[in-house]
Amino acid sequence: MTAGEQVVARCRALAEVSEERGRLTRPFATAAMARANAKVGTWMRAAGLAVSVDAMGNLVGRRPGTDPAAGTLLLGSHLDSVRDAGAFDGPLGVLVAVEALARLGPLPFGVDVYGFADEEGLRYGTAYLGSRTVAGTLDPAVLMLADDDDVTVAEALRAFGGDPAALPAAARTGERLLGYVEVHMEQGPVLEREGAAVGVVSAIAGATRAELRFQGQPGHAGTVPMEARRDAACAAAAWVLEVEAAGRATPGLLATVGRLTAHPGATNVIPGRVLASLDVRHAVDADRLGTVATLHAAAGAAAAARDVSLDWQVVLDNPAVAVDPGLTALLDACVHDRTGAPAPHLPSGAGHDAVALSALCPVAMLFVRCAGGLSHHPAEDVAAGDAALAVDVLAALLGRLAAA
Amino acid sequence: MTAGEQVVARCRALAEVSEERGRLTRPFATAAMARANAKVGTWMRAAGLAVSVDAMGNLVGRRPGTDPAAGTLLLGSHLDSVRDAGAFDGPLGVLVAVEALARLGPLPFGVDVYGFADEEGLRYGTAYLGSRTVAGTLDPAVLMLADDDDVTVAEALRAFGGDPAALPAAARTGERLLGYVEVHMEQGPVLEREGAAVGVVSAIAGATRAELRFQGQPGHAGTVPMEARRDAACAAAAWVLEVEAAGRATPGLLATVGRLTAHPGATNVIPGRVLASLDVRHAVDADRLGTVATLHAAAGAAAAARDVSLDWQVVLDNPAVAVDPGLTALLDACVHDRTGAPAPHLPSGAGHDAVALSALCPVAMLFVRCAGGLSHHPAEDVAAGDAALAVDVLAALLGRLAAA
Repeated sequence: MTAGEQVVARCRALAEVSEERGRLTRPFATAAMARANAKVGTWMRAAGLAVSVDAMGNLVGRRPGTDPAAGTLLLGSHLDSVRDAGAFDGPLGVLVAVEALARLGPLPFGVDVYGFADEEGLRYGTAYLGSRTVAGTLDPAVLMLADDDDVTVAEALRAFGGDPAALPAAARTGERLLGYVEVHMEQGPVLEREGAAVGVVSAIAGATRAELRFQGQPGHAGTVPMEARRDAACAAAAWVLEVEAAGRATPGLLATVGRLTAHPGATNVIPGRVLASLDVRHAVDADRLGTVATLHAAAGAAAAARDVSLDWQVVLDNPAVAVDPGLTALLDACVHDRTGAPAPHLPSGAGHDAVALSALCPVAMLFVRCAGGLSHHPAEDVAAGDAALAVDVLAALLGRLAAA
Repeated sequence: MTAGEQVVARCRALAEVSEERGRLTRPFATAAMARANAKVGTWMRAAGLAVSVDAMGNLVGRRPGTDPAAGTLLLGSHLDSVRDAGAFDGPLGVLVAVEALARLGPLPFGVDVYGFADEEGLRYGTAYLGSRTVAGTLDPAVLMLADDDDVTVAEALRAFGGDPAALPAAARTGERLLGYVEVHMEQGPVLEREGAAVGVVSAIAGATRAELRFQGQPGHAGTVPMEARRDAACAAAAWVLEVEAAGRATPGLLATVGRLTAHPGATNVIPGRVLASLDVRHAVDADRLGTVATLHAAAGAAAAARDVSLDWQVVLDNPAVAVDPGLTALLDACVHDRTGAPAPHLPSGAGHDAVALSALCPVAMLFVRCAGGLSHHPAEDVAAGDAALAVDVLAALLGRLAAA
């Protein structure tokens, strides 16, 4: 079995470890997470790593370096999942790291492979519980968040075998860290379209989310003349086209109206109200914020042109995260070495544990091509050959860092 | 109390007769309909009419003419309601007719005032049960339709005191009928905007309803580049603007997208599917059908431009109903006499019992101004002065017909 086949086979075996029968759902601090940690821990030990679980339930596989002064490199990704998930989102990065270490001899620096306990936020609606703990940026208030069964994070953690009081000691602050390198499936179609097995992440895009309400006047579709209407759906439709045009006009910008619902929603009633959402992402914050301002004004204008009022609430405003130029250039060189071509660069539109760890140390990311851009879906797929290249590139990166 | 005050007071008193406490909901063949028939029957008798209820539950107030060969004129409107209705939609026309007859001496022709049993279709989802019975166009298959409690029309009718077997005899076919004249609240804002208390209906608009499904491809809002998207919401939005533009471009055309819902409807997911509806109305069938064809093509083009597929189902296609030129000209003259100005002419965008009766005899309609165009709502309102003018005009029409 090749290294790539090994990684894919392990991802698929791990996908059987679920809280739900017949589909993969593995939330933070559940019995399924404990079984997943045990299973990945076995593979880590087979690769020569010393395995532990930290106070937040993160799985850690450690390999000491030969030079205690050389510091530690962090690798990994997350082991939790969304509901009805695919096998690769998260585990791929952990198992590529394990496989890369399995083939390498002694390194001067230590390497710790993390399997983070909560990146998706399925159980508590807040992501990065695991990686924020490691970064030392976890807000203690999240310990009081309750899940659907009124179990708090602190209670879930204790039942899992974790220790809320020991969380500060799980942070890796104050150490010499060389950086955090995360391998992750792309979750988009870019690499597949470019015919590339892997790509180097150029930045993790910033994101703005807004909730909009267009408020007009409902009325009888058979009696209110067009010129007397205050149709919220027409106002919203004009704005949706502005969103599409803005996305197309700015390279690298993603702009999406995911929610769009007319009320009351009857065939013979003019919509008096439309609820809509906006999601804008770009690797450059100024471009994102400029587009958001333009689209806010466009929504107001589309509404005003129809005597419709607009309510606009920004509900999320995450700045972009820069990747480390040094680590990223090394990833570049390793891809070029293995493939004979420059690595495609692409921003990550989705968030990753690297976002949280960027507060702690330099970060870099390698994306692996996935089938049809599909993710958060049981049909999610990564080819063994692509996983093999990711293992090669990560192992080469570790070799170059050791030689530096 | 003036005639107008009397009409408004009676409409308001009748609004207390409901199947639901605290709001007006009066469906076909219910206890509330029986009480409404009894109450209106009392007012009919006070105006000298002979009262009966036909086999479909229609209330009929008859006044014989002095000349048996002169035939019969039908007046009226409906006494059933939508859920949480206003006081005037339907009853206004019945009570204006009763009030007009109360002030008139003998007429050569007979006059029958109908309070139709089902115009709204609330209980069985099919309108005009009452007026189709009178027109002799009722499809007997509707007797087997069941309501939410699995009670069929036939069962409901028997429980109400009606008689499914006697329905053919309730039809007024084969008689000499002078026509059917219906007074109804406008249910739109046109008369109020023109500052006119009443208007003459120029035609009852035809209507097309279609259900649309735009099917694209869902995807991650943070990872799928704009040019790789198959966004159903963008396709639908482009089409909604075409609908709005078509409505504005064609005089008298009403075009409405009442239902518009993006799926799956999450902020960070590109909409893979949008369900939408189209409602197009115009008094001239060719204009309506031409617009529908244009909008069908526009939907296909908006979809194709985004690699989205379109499913288009026409679910209703009702031709326009012409009003009788002679009766309408008489209404015109009567309004002009009373107001000193020509009557505004306007198409009826909504359907009315006159649609069903147009299969039986010449029809004409007089609209009465309503507050803010509001209808199918408890705040529905008609001014006493406007109701008074409607009584005057209808009484004048009867006088002119008698003199003709």
